[in-house]
Amino acid sequence: MNIACLDLEGVLLPEIWQEVAKVTNIDELKLTTRDIQDYDELMQYRLNLLKKHNLSLLDIQKVIQTLEPLQGAEAFLSWLTSQTQVIILSDTFIEFVQPLLPKLNNPTIFCHNLEVNKANQITGYKLRLPNHKQKAVEAFHSLNFTTIATGDSFNDTNMLQSAHFGIFFCPSQKTINAFPSIPIAHNYDELKQAFATQLALQNTSSI
Amino acid sequence: MNIACLDLEGVLLPEIWQEVAKVTNIDELKLTTRDIQDYDELMQYRLNLLKKHNLSLLDIQKVIQTLEPLQGAEAFLSWLTSQTQVIILSDTFIEFVQPLLPKLNNPTIFCHNLEVNKANQITGYKLRLPNHKQKAVEAFHSLNFTTIATGDSFNDTNMLQSAHFGIFFCPSQKTINAFPSIPIAHNYDELKQAFATQLALQNTSSI
Repeated sequence: MNIACLDLEGVLLPEIWQEVAKVTNIDELKLTTRDIQDYDELMQYRLNLLKKHNLSLLDIQKVIQTLEPLQGAEAFLSWLTSQTQVIILSDTFIEFVQPLLPKLNNPTIFCHNLEVNKANQITGYKLRLPNHKQKAVEAFHSLNFTTIATGDSFNDTNMLQSAHFGIFFCPSQKTINAFPSIPIAHNYDELKQAFATQLALQNTSSI
Repeated sequence: MNIACLDLEGVLLPEIWQEVAKVTNIDELKLTTRDIQDYDELMQYRLNLLKKHNLSLLDIQKVIQTLEPLQGAEAFLSWLTSQTQVIILSDTFIEFVQPLLPKLNNPTIFCHNLEVNKANQITGYKLRLPNHKQKAVEAFHSLNFTTIATGDSFNDTNMLQSAHFGIFFCPSQKTINAFPSIPIAHNYDELKQAFATQLALQNTSSI
């Protein structure tokens, strides 16, 4: 049996913090790990900004609920789900992404949690497991699954290289240069073709 | 984060072999592990019956496609999916169950494969992993998930006992007698209540 492991932001959804920055007009929220490399430092910076602007989890969820999946994402995911098992492996937080999941027909997702107090303020975050994408792929292998993975950025490369077959989806030139051996899909048609080819190969070899 | 691990037949769907036996009027297909205890012997017996009656995989799939989920199953699963991540852990074969999954909104399922030749005859089966339900629960624990599991029969008890919380759903009296310490839900309302209670407890303790 196969499992397709999909990154979420950049593959099916836009980058959530970037979109929240746009809708709330808080430009400082646009900073990413390109600007502040230490992830914990970046997250504390973001959470302090939310506090400063007096934004509760509910406020952020209302913004997130207005976002839409990338164009073509829902059709691609629907096709993939009809072909194999799909699990989203994401570094987002379930409290952020929950309002958007119905727009993707509620796929199964492995991600992290926010810490929220009784006043609905986000007080911190809790990574479920460091490097959890790669570890999930390895766990699926221990359960005798064949894995096909896709993602768009550096934090996906451990997953893409651990999977039986990894595919970049619309990566940046910097990411391509750093991992030139990972095949690339530039749009959903190419991604669909790459999955279809691998699924056909693996279904043939498993019988 | 939590994962709900659900058995399929007896929890969301009727017993597939029993239903196929009814629709095809092949009474011998009604035999279960209660009648032939060795699973491999039972499966070879079933596959020989299909061959004898000249039934291809497509014929069986056409029968299976006419089946419906248990009454209330789709609503229960839809509610559970809105509350937590759900993965079906089943000893069925993906080729059998595939036609029914859209009726449950395509949940993620870990199960097994049939072996099918070019003439579409079922020639054998391939268990992905022995005792795979318990092993999946253990893999989820290694990924720092909290698990809540439900199932109806003996082949679920390893999973129910390995999970952080296990719930029987409508088990037989024989199963209840053998595992008197596992709590029981007698209908979907009780099952929903049991999940809701556990999810609330675990969400409180994780923050």
